[in-house]
Amino acid sequence: MGRNEVEDKVENSIDPEDEHNGDPGDKKLKQEVGETSVERLFEDQEVPSWRKQLTMRAFGVSFFLSILFTFIVMKLNLTTGIIPSLNVSAGLLGFFFVRTWTKLLQKSGLLKQPFTRQENTVIQTCVVASSGIAFSGGFGSYLFGMSERISKQSSDTHDFKNPSLGWIIGFLFVVSFLGLFSVVPLRRIMIIDFKLTYPSGTATAHLINSFHTPHGAKLAKKQVRALRKFFTFSFLWGFFQWFYTAGEDCGFLHFPSLGLKAYNYKFYFDFSATYVGVGMICPYIINVSVLVGGILSWGLMWPLIENRKGDWYSASLPPNSMNGLQAYKVFIAIALILGDGLYNFLKVLSQTILGLSHQLLTKKMSSDLPVADHSSPMSSQLSYDDKRRSQLFLKDQIPTWFAIGGYVAIAAISMGTLPLIFHQLKWYYILVIYIFAPTLAFCNAYGCGLTDWSLASTYGKLAIFTIGAWAGASHGGVLAGLAACGVMMNIVSTASDLMQDFKTGYLTLASPRAMFVSQLIGTSMGCVIAPSVFWLFYNAFEDIGVPGSEYAAPYAIMFRNMAIVGVEGFSSLPKNCLLLCYVFFGAAILINLIRDRVDKKWGRYIPLPMAMAIPFYIGPYFAIDMCVGSLILFIWEKINKSKADAFGPAVASGLICGDGIWTLPASILALAGVKPPICMKFLSRGSNAKVDKFLSPHG
Amino acid sequence: MGRNEVEDKVENSIDPEDEHNGDPGDKKLKQEVGETSVERLFEDQEVPSWRKQLTMRAFGVSFFLSILFTFIVMKLNLTTGIIPSLNVSAGLLGFFFVRTWTKLLQKSGLLKQPFTRQENTVIQTCVVASSGIAFSGGFGSYLFGMSERISKQSSDTHDFKNPSLGWIIGFLFVVSFLGLFSVVPLRRIMIIDFKLTYPSGTATAHLINSFHTPHGAKLAKKQVRALRKFFTFSFLWGFFQWFYTAGEDCGFLHFPSLGLKAYNYKFYFDFSATYVGVGMICPYIINVSVLVGGILSWGLMWPLIENRKGDWYSASLPPNSMNGLQAYKVFIAIALILGDGLYNFLKVLSQTILGLSHQLLTKKMSSDLPVADHSSPMSSQLSYDDKRRSQLFLKDQIPTWFAIGGYVAIAAISMGTLPLIFHQLKWYYILVIYIFAPTLAFCNAYGCGLTDWSLASTYGKLAIFTIGAWAGASHGGVLAGLAACGVMMNIVSTASDLMQDFKTGYLTLASPRAMFVSQLIGTSMGCVIAPSVFWLFYNAFEDIGVPGSEYAAPYAIMFRNMAIVGVEGFSSLPKNCLLLCYVFFGAAILINLIRDRVDKKWGRYIPLPMAMAIPFYIGPYFAIDMCVGSLILFIWEKINKSKADAFGPAVASGLICGDGIWTLPASILALAGVKPPICMKFLSRGSNAKVDKFLSPHG
Repeated sequence: MGRNEVEDKVENSIDPEDEHNGDPGDKKLKQEVGETSVERLFEDQEVPSWRKQLTMRAFGVSFFLSILFTFIVMKLNLTTGIIPSLNVSAGLLGFFFVRTWTKLLQKSGLLKQPFTRQENTVIQTCVVASSGIAFSGGFGSYLFGMSERISKQSSDTHDFKNPSLGWIIGFLFVVSFLGLFSVVPLRRIMIIDFKLTYPSGTATAHLINSFHTPHGAKLAKKQVRALRKFFTFSFLWGFFQWFYTAGEDCGFLHFPSLGLKAYNYKFYFDFSATYVGVGMICPYIINVSVLVGGILSWGLMWPLIENRKGDWYSASLPPNSMNGLQAYKVFIAIALILGDGLYNFLKVLSQTILGLSHQLLTKKMSSDLPVADHSSPMSSQLSYDDKRRSQLFLKDQIPTWFAIGGYVAIAAISMGTLPLIFHQLKWYYILVIYIFAPTLAFCNAYGCGLTDWSLASTYGKLAIFTIGAWAGASHGGVLAGLAACGVMMNIVSTASDLMQDFKTGYLTLASPRAMFVSQLIGTSMGCVIAPSVFWLFYNAFEDIGVPGSEYAAPYAIMFRNMAIVGVEGFSSLPKNCLLLCYVFFGAAILINLIRDRVDKKWGRYIPLPMAMAIPFYIGPYFAIDMCVGSLILFIWEKINKSKADAFGPAVASGLICGDGIWTLPASILALAGVKPPICMKFLSRGSNAKVDKFLSPHG
Repeated sequence: MGRNEVEDKVENSIDPEDEHNGDPGDKKLKQEVGETSVERLFEDQEVPSWRKQLTMRAFGVSFFLSILFTFIVMKLNLTTGIIPSLNVSAGLLGFFFVRTWTKLLQKSGLLKQPFTRQENTVIQTCVVASSGIAFSGGFGSYLFGMSERISKQSSDTHDFKNPSLGWIIGFLFVVSFLGLFSVVPLRRIMIIDFKLTYPSGTATAHLINSFHTPHGAKLAKKQVRALRKFFTFSFLWGFFQWFYTAGEDCGFLHFPSLGLKAYNYKFYFDFSATYVGVGMICPYIINVSVLVGGILSWGLMWPLIENRKGDWYSASLPPNSMNGLQAYKVFIAIALILGDGLYNFLKVLSQTILGLSHQLLTKKMSSDLPVADHSSPMSSQLSYDDKRRSQLFLKDQIPTWFAIGGYVAIAAISMGTLPLIFHQLKWYYILVIYIFAPTLAFCNAYGCGLTDWSLASTYGKLAIFTIGAWAGASHGGVLAGLAACGVMMNIVSTASDLMQDFKTGYLTLASPRAMFVSQLIGTSMGCVIAPSVFWLFYNAFEDIGVPGSEYAAPYAIMFRNMAIVGVEGFSSLPKNCLLLCYVFFGAAILINLIRDRVDKKWGRYIPLPMAMAIPFYIGPYFAIDMCVGSLILFIWEKINKSKADAFGPAVASGLICGDGIWTLPASILALAGVKPPICMKFLSRGSNAKVDKFLSPHG
């Protein structure tokens, strides 16, 4: 298995629960900048000192954008859990705001410091760190899985911990900084010595570099205009839809666009601008996989299993009981996710070990100078770019004692406070996690550098099973497992984020010290913003976590059920459910094996089990949205490839951001008790006749 | 009042009941061809003999297009009565079909005769003649106004004659050919001697000429592509909408897009592709007039009058009674239409007399050669184009004895048969009509040549009042008036159509004899196609002529009420209704006077009373569609004027044709008893809660 195959995977695959993915849009922008020396273009520009890279305006813009992206990520978390790469939008919007700001200042003669790409990188880093918490905080997965509402839906009802602003902020503060300190000493090895690719980080750097060249700035301006146009459209569309949502099952979200029969099995286009945008950003194979998964589950399996009602499971159960059809939906999805996760974990691990040993070998043979990456022949002689970048990267050091000291200090605080939040999570569980965490954080950062695939949630699941089983059912293993998952996910996720950002900083000559500070500030912001936004959603929308509703939060119930399985085994599953789980677990591994083994040309057409699993629980409606998005992009590419490549990501970002930010006024309206005035209802001809009869005497 | 002002009116005004109007799209296309000699471009092309201009394929295509356009015109007739100029679409589609056909034949080597612009003119003429019957047949006005359904809605219920395929076809055959014979001897005077402009005919000729030059053919191809694209979209949109229309008040046609309160007063966007297209074709001032009329009536007057319920009219009346609010709606609209009609009739008549006397004077002074038009200075010397055109126009003669003989023969047949169809219409009424008809036909043809404004329906109204009053209430005056209106309208309408076509033929070197034959064939087709299509509509859709429904046929009730007023006077009108009628009648004349008197710059911003009257009865929803259409065109023109000018009419035609032709499968589905499966219903939050409660125990 050569490296090519792995890197290829980035283009064709995505871990739907993780946010850092190779964005095809970035790839193409990269080519525009050209392969010749980038740093020569910037030769006459002075690089500001690390303190000067950290400006107030940068953090002002970051704060604003963090709130924006947290809303978007939170909405995605709570609806389907699919989070596409928002790096391009963050980059574009950051550039746009600061550029507007500096232009204004320049005109008024007040500008003291010009807008540099280093400052742009600082914003980017801060926003990604902050909105990353909205994902790794588990508001759609482990954290919300602890709540009473989710525990009532699963087969156990022992233990729950309802979300509350106070403990969530505290929890996030004590676990979110560990990842940063754990990998900071390794940055030189990863970035300069190993020359890891970090596709997303590299793409972002190229984007930022391109913005600050004259041609790139022009293109960026146009892209921002496209983004703004579709942002406005998407926002207004969200607003318009709102008016027709008085009552349940009302409005465009319940439009039976493929007929009522298809609607009953969740096959319909729900007019969601967000998921059309997501479909435009995600690679085609993801969209196809999700659709295939939806057809397989809701089009085939669930109707067939439903026919066995009374045989496979009791017919008298309430529709959402975890002992009925719901169990098949949840556990088969878990089986697929775990199978895929396990396969990729082992694959990335073996590659990590292989790559590591190879690089250590090469390093020993060569001098102390930064070595050539074995896979990039042209860098065997050090280029001008590499020289200049290494020089600046090594200038500002972060002392190793500071990193280790920080890790130990935070770990100690964490061990003291976490058992106060979750009494089920004993201090020695935490100690064990913290001993292993740096290794796992390194593994994830390294794997992500190779494959662009952050396996944070897979490491989190590992923690669920190990700590859950250790604690056992009688000692609140379910909650202990979920909490441990949170601790683990936060560490490994922030570690790989930081390293991505270091790569971006390396390529834009931003100081690593500035990056680190920006990441610290961004993480702190995220620890406050993300819980607050979640709190707003939680109070504004009554149906968060309710099956079949808009905010079904599918991963919450899945994570909880994983914890239950980890603690209690498969005792309460309905007939044949376990068998089907085994089949799908095996199938996930088999499909992955086939993808990797067959010719690359054919492998790219084989669907991804992880993506297939998502519609199993919530239904394929969002898959139809996504396919509409990718169909639009496909036709656009056929008509005008270069335009589609340049503006597709901007349009998609606009669609996602506009709809996402509409949830802010929507939730405020809901909190203020303002209810939409009209219900757009869809009735069959029969019930419509009944309703007409019912309504007519009343006027 | 110079001629300029009149011609200017064409651009800014439209008689919403008449179909021949200056199309701004044509105007611009005309400029593309350039003002230099057109005939030099075609010099080396042989003009086929008149027999060869009349090909089978031309009539095959004409037949097909006639059905298409009859559907569209019928739909427009029965929904609002606004019929925009469809000449561009007819020209484009005729060109497209024959060109495709000849291209195919050419490839297979079977092509015997190339496609010439003369043949194209023949198709154009035939289609316009045929679909013209759908308008002048009065299926949305006088003819349907005779039916029982309409008579029940008006204050009299004396007399009715329900539509039936047999008598309608017979009636059309005996009245539709008279107009042709009555003006055919005058073609030389009107076209060559008077050189009347006939803006629509000229524009169509320029369009056809441009198609047959290489550059024009390319543009036409692109236009056809745009037309086809929007045709498909509009057709599929109609199809999609259909699924959601199970039951009354269901579907997109009842979408309260501006809120429920506005919906109750018929202010909403009803997603009709047809009227968005109509809005794109009609001049801005028409759209604005319709909207202003809608706001004035449904936004202001009707709510105010409704408050007087119990005082101005009895509160116990059924909602659609002609003694209640409905009377205000109908009669105020009639007052506006009659005021506007009277003003313009007198204006055009005075211009006709003025122009005629002027031209006869000039003619006497100059030689026998075709004289220069006093308004076109450049033709004082005869150009190459004029010479060649006159030569060919005069080559094929139609003997005057044939025309007169034809007129007398048909008049005799008509006098014998019409009283058999309508026993209220005595033979001497018909004789009187036929004595005056040639003069009125000439007036209309001449006025139309000057102003592009066919006043057919105004002449029809004249007949309603005179013949109705003559017959009197006791002798079925209402039906006699309506039938007389039909006779009159058919004569004057076909007369002006024919002369328009002669002008087109003159400019494209088509033989007048071919034009005449084509018009005869087209009219015969129309006499069969139009009643059949109406019959299909009448049987397929139950709500034809029902107030407030999709097919409200607003002019049917208005024409009937005009006849009632003509026969019975204003006896049964509710309080203050007559006063308001006088006010609006006066206002219509005053507004027209101001339009003509004030500076042209300001005059063009003054709304047209005729257009304002339409929403008075049916409500302003279609005005909102039309304004959306003109808004789209406005923005398009801002972005890319030349593209909007070239493709706007094609896009609009596509939207109108697609939606119009969807009514064919829709009516077939309705006849076959296939009902749509889903109702998209709009309920207020309150009634939705009630409905949810009602539905929940039943499943």
